[in-house]
Amino acid sequence: MNDSTSSPSPRLLATIGGPSQVKALAPAQLPQLAQEIREELIAITARNGGHIGPNLGVVELTIALHRVFDSPTDQFVFDVAHQGYVHKLLTGRGGEFFRRLRQSGGASGFLYRRESPHDPFGAGHAGTALSAALGMATARDLRGSREHVVAVCGDAAFTCGITLEALNNVVSSTQRLIVILNDNEWSIAKNVGAISNYLNRISTNQTYNKLHHDVEAFFKSFPAGVEMNRVYMKWKRETKDFFVESSLFEKFGLRYLGPVDGHDFEALQKNLEFAKHCDVPVIIHLLTKKGKGLEAAIAHPEKFHGAAPFDPITGESRKATPGGPPNYQDVFGQALTRFARANPKVVGITGAMPSGTGLSHLAEGVPQQFFDVGIAEEHAVIFAAGMATKGFRPVCAIYSTFLQRAYDQVVHDVALQELPVTFCLDRAGLSPNDGPTHHGLFDLAYLRCVPNATIMQPKDEDELVDMLHTSLQLPGPGFIRYPRGAGTGATIKAQPAALPVGHAEVLREGSNLMIWALGNMVQDALRLAERLAKEEHLSVGVVNARFVKPLDRALLLSHAACIPLLVTMEDHVLAGGFGSAVLEALQDADCPTAVERIGWPDKFIEHGTSVEVLRASYGLSPDDIHRRVLARWRNLREEPVAADV
Amino acid sequence: MNDSTSSPSPRLLATIGGPSQVKALAPAQLPQLAQEIREELIAITARNGGHIGPNLGVVELTIALHRVFDSPTDQFVFDVAHQGYVHKLLTGRGGEFFRRLRQSGGASGFLYRRESPHDPFGAGHAGTALSAALGMATARDLRGSREHVVAVCGDAAFTCGITLEALNNVVSSTQRLIVILNDNEWSIAKNVGAISNYLNRISTNQTYNKLHHDVEAFFKSFPAGVEMNRVYMKWKRETKDFFVESSLFEKFGLRYLGPVDGHDFEALQKNLEFAKHCDVPVIIHLLTKKGKGLEAAIAHPEKFHGAAPFDPITGESRKATPGGPPNYQDVFGQALTRFARANPKVVGITGAMPSGTGLSHLAEGVPQQFFDVGIAEEHAVIFAAGMATKGFRPVCAIYSTFLQRAYDQVVHDVALQELPVTFCLDRAGLSPNDGPTHHGLFDLAYLRCVPNATIMQPKDEDELVDMLHTSLQLPGPGFIRYPRGAGTGATIKAQPAALPVGHAEVLREGSNLMIWALGNMVQDALRLAERLAKEEHLSVGVVNARFVKPLDRALLLSHAACIPLLVTMEDHVLAGGFGSAVLEALQDADCPTAVERIGWPDKFIEHGTSVEVLRASYGLSPDDIHRRVLARWRNLREEPVAADV
Repeated sequence: MNDSTSSPSPRLLATIGGPSQVKALAPAQLPQLAQEIREELIAITARNGGHIGPNLGVVELTIALHRVFDSPTDQFVFDVAHQGYVHKLLTGRGGEFFRRLRQSGGASGFLYRRESPHDPFGAGHAGTALSAALGMATARDLRGSREHVVAVCGDAAFTCGITLEALNNVVSSTQRLIVILNDNEWSIAKNVGAISNYLNRISTNQTYNKLHHDVEAFFKSFPAGVEMNRVYMKWKRETKDFFVESSLFEKFGLRYLGPVDGHDFEALQKNLEFAKHCDVPVIIHLLTKKGKGLEAAIAHPEKFHGAAPFDPITGESRKATPGGPPNYQDVFGQALTRFARANPKVVGITGAMPSGTGLSHLAEGVPQQFFDVGIAEEHAVIFAAGMATKGFRPVCAIYSTFLQRAYDQVVHDVALQELPVTFCLDRAGLSPNDGPTHHGLFDLAYLRCVPNATIMQPKDEDELVDMLHTSLQLPGPGFIRYPRGAGTGATIKAQPAALPVGHAEVLREGSNLMIWALGNMVQDALRLAERLAKEEHLSVGVVNARFVKPLDRALLLSHAACIPLLVTMEDHVLAGGFGSAVLEALQDADCPTAVERIGWPDKFIEHGTSVEVLRASYGLSPDDIHRRVLARWRNLREEPVAADV
Repeated sequence: MNDSTSSPSPRLLATIGGPSQVKALAPAQLPQLAQEIREELIAITARNGGHIGPNLGVVELTIALHRVFDSPTDQFVFDVAHQGYVHKLLTGRGGEFFRRLRQSGGASGFLYRRESPHDPFGAGHAGTALSAALGMATARDLRGSREHVVAVCGDAAFTCGITLEALNNVVSSTQRLIVILNDNEWSIAKNVGAISNYLNRISTNQTYNKLHHDVEAFFKSFPAGVEMNRVYMKWKRETKDFFVESSLFEKFGLRYLGPVDGHDFEALQKNLEFAKHCDVPVIIHLLTKKGKGLEAAIAHPEKFHGAAPFDPITGESRKATPGGPPNYQDVFGQALTRFARANPKVVGITGAMPSGTGLSHLAEGVPQQFFDVGIAEEHAVIFAAGMATKGFRPVCAIYSTFLQRAYDQVVHDVALQELPVTFCLDRAGLSPNDGPTHHGLFDLAYLRCVPNATIMQPKDEDELVDMLHTSLQLPGPGFIRYPRGAGTGATIKAQPAALPVGHAEVLREGSNLMIWALGNMVQDALRLAERLAKEEHLSVGVVNARFVKPLDRALLLSHAACIPLLVTMEDHVLAGGFGSAVLEALQDADCPTAVERIGWPDKFIEHGTSVEVLRASYGLSPDDIHRRVLARWRNLREEPVAADV
């Protein structure tokens, strides 16, 4: 396999079982490997969906990393880790495992410590790599070992406060750290902010770019064995570093190298080799092309950041089911755009997620009332709070899992000050293909304890619009959670209704059981009720809870007084969730009615092929729930009455 | 009052009812006003405790702000807002209200929107001011008004990712914003990191400082009425800005002015006037002296950042009660130091809180295993996670309320990866004098839903050491919460015990009631049990719960099976807290035992004179709890048995 440059194997990738095989390739074979990797990436993501754009951009970088460093002894920390597909293909995770990317039993769409020793630090949320790498480098220094730690960050990571906090701490923590700044000018959407502008300025300066081409000659002028550190000053003179003498990164104490063409193997390897021998932290600024190798992805970088299955030739999404119900995201975005048109005080704020959240509708329709602050959820929320003090009605559209990033700001800046900010928590419930970093299963627990919060979940997309309308009239913060993907197909009223705050909706009366269902579980509850009625001749009611806080205690207690078994259903963990709120309300009213709580267990839920597959693995399929509820009902009929005190 | 420069009133401060009176003073009167303010600050904080150091540093700045701007039309956003005492004294909140600073009914130690229209944005946690001010300025621009928004940030705010996220967004959000960088080289402890070093370099450069003195002459050379913007380039040449042509802040698109002597009224007013007329965002870099006017505070800046009552002459703390029980903080810090000495893999990490958390013991004793990362809780937690991947046992000492800042990192970086990081949540429960921004009342709710978390609270300081010892052996994350201040006086064992995880401790048997008490409520529970036994002849048991997660379900269910009333007691809100965990466990076992939950209601708890005073206001005094438990018991005896289903 090594040195076989004369007749390159048509399936070079198939021969790569690990980094040693990557190292063994002749330089002339690398373009072919890159080409094969790109073909594999496109083929698999076209079928399974996935982060195709970011991965196409790091093919050469990842190959170069494995040639210059020794993974897993040397450690790569990929920020967000959605660009780790190439790394997986090069570390023994190709073939059938990779072909089941993002499906049950297949490769995760992110990096995971448990998936491979080559993944020293997993992720799924952005901006963590520099901090993690700094912790690892510091630990290495303390224990006295010599391995390298390399953080691979996109330019968008530098819009995130965590990366900037870490940057402020680099030099005081270690003298040996390599940071790759993979600059493709995009976060998920087009990158925003001053640092992005700054990077753009230094990348496009003509003087700098001419000089960069001289670096090769410079390197060739040194005899083998010359200690690299000694020649740093000369290197500095030969690169733009000399001219950008007080570059942003130098102010933070890092040596800046670049910009380097991130698709040029030789330039990559030389810069990485140089960085390996530096005695101060180094940042290598790479210019890469997001989506390189797939025309559709280059033309539509946001769409192909994380794409649904697509046609690899045309780039057309395969998921479009014409005539199917619209996504919650689109319904939200369109409704907000209408509200913003009608009221100039209504503004929408996103942290680099205009498409994912549906705020792109607002960005197009009423751009002056739309704000993308970058991957900066903390800032997004306080910025919203600031606007609210001036009479505005900001709507922060943030995925449930990413709002964890701004928890303190929700508590300290919004709720404590009772500011009327609306939070739209998209991806509440499962993001099945993405997995544990993207499921939104904790928000009710972390928000329910926050005073002044109003927390809602709609049963369908029409009620989502009503809730948005309702929240925009609240005196304080409103939180609306809803799942990823398609709604139920409910007709959206021309005029939204203002919902009475804290009131649930009885959808079906019953006298044996009453199911209090939240949001997307309402449909499941209705089917369950129907089945229990039909098969078991039970009288089963269904309540659309609507509000988790304030809970409709009056209705709940009226049910508890006359119905022997209540069932709660929620797309959330059981610890501290909606069912827990029901238990609290009952116990506070000294009401011992039995409650069967249906929700997710106390575990991180892995990625899987679909919501249905994951629910079935955790005993939450419709059949499972039917069995559990029925068993509890029968058990209740049999158990003795509570002993008299 | 105005123009009475000839014979300055001996009590100038008493004549200041609001900003208009500050404006009316002659320049020559300002030093006297500053002096009187300092005397008042020292007198009141010596008695009540408070943030004396930061406030002594901003006396001239705050006076100058009120002379140059028109509050409340123009708006000042003070970062952390613990340096707002001077602002309070100048906006009608002096006299008796200020003399009851940090006590029930008196002035808050922070700024609050509800306290005054001069407080447009409250705070208590650091790093939020720039984001909030940016939101306010953006809202102003959108609605087309012209008022000024001024953010006043300490240099430590720039160690916090939120400030840096905001900085990245300034120029894309507004062209009119004034940022005061109040550089006293301290956060709470000595400031850390690259930005701090950078500020120090530009402040101490001789060339720059010589030039700075020429600015006055420059200003005098202009005729009245010349538009200030036009002369910016000349200003630039006359200040060090010319030499620091690519200063850090310029890269973010802000005009940098400074450094300016923050105690020089004339320099302050001139720079603020200049900033008022700029058409790009401006940052004014002030050099101030933390604690200026109180020798002890200058000598011990960390101690006098937020001080307990002290002797204004000697600076001696008045609270030292010799022979009293030690603080939880000191016990923690000393224990961790012992563990770190014994095991080089044990490290302690703080976000700018070495003294407050007790980690200063480690910093002194084993400095190479101590890390202060600045006000950067997110980075602190991921840094810890990174170290944990290399076999280290990091201990993050972060106040309960500040861990809200790193919630996503707890979930996504630590718990999901099952990394053995220990979190010591200081200030769990009330920080009575500080108020709602500092109480730690939500942590159980937001942590209980996190898979893989082990959550504990010790009944006394000896058990704290046991829990720290236990947590350092866990395979995953451990959370230990404990209150501010003195322990119970328990003897600390020479050798800590490893507690069996998930096991509670029965302290007193009982057959009528069983009180499950958490942490600092155990002592209250024992007293309550004793009283109920004595006065009501009830058999009341007490359990020291120890673990909120995993809960001791076996013991709980054994009690629930034979004891008619369980009581839970916790220093935490009821929504989603410890009592809620008990309800969940009982309902899951289909066990209808009555539970009376004692804890904080669903409200933000204001500041107050003491824990006792605040508990009494919310029906949580020992007498109140006694009454509630007894009433529930009597009610339970009378109510009919639950109807048969």
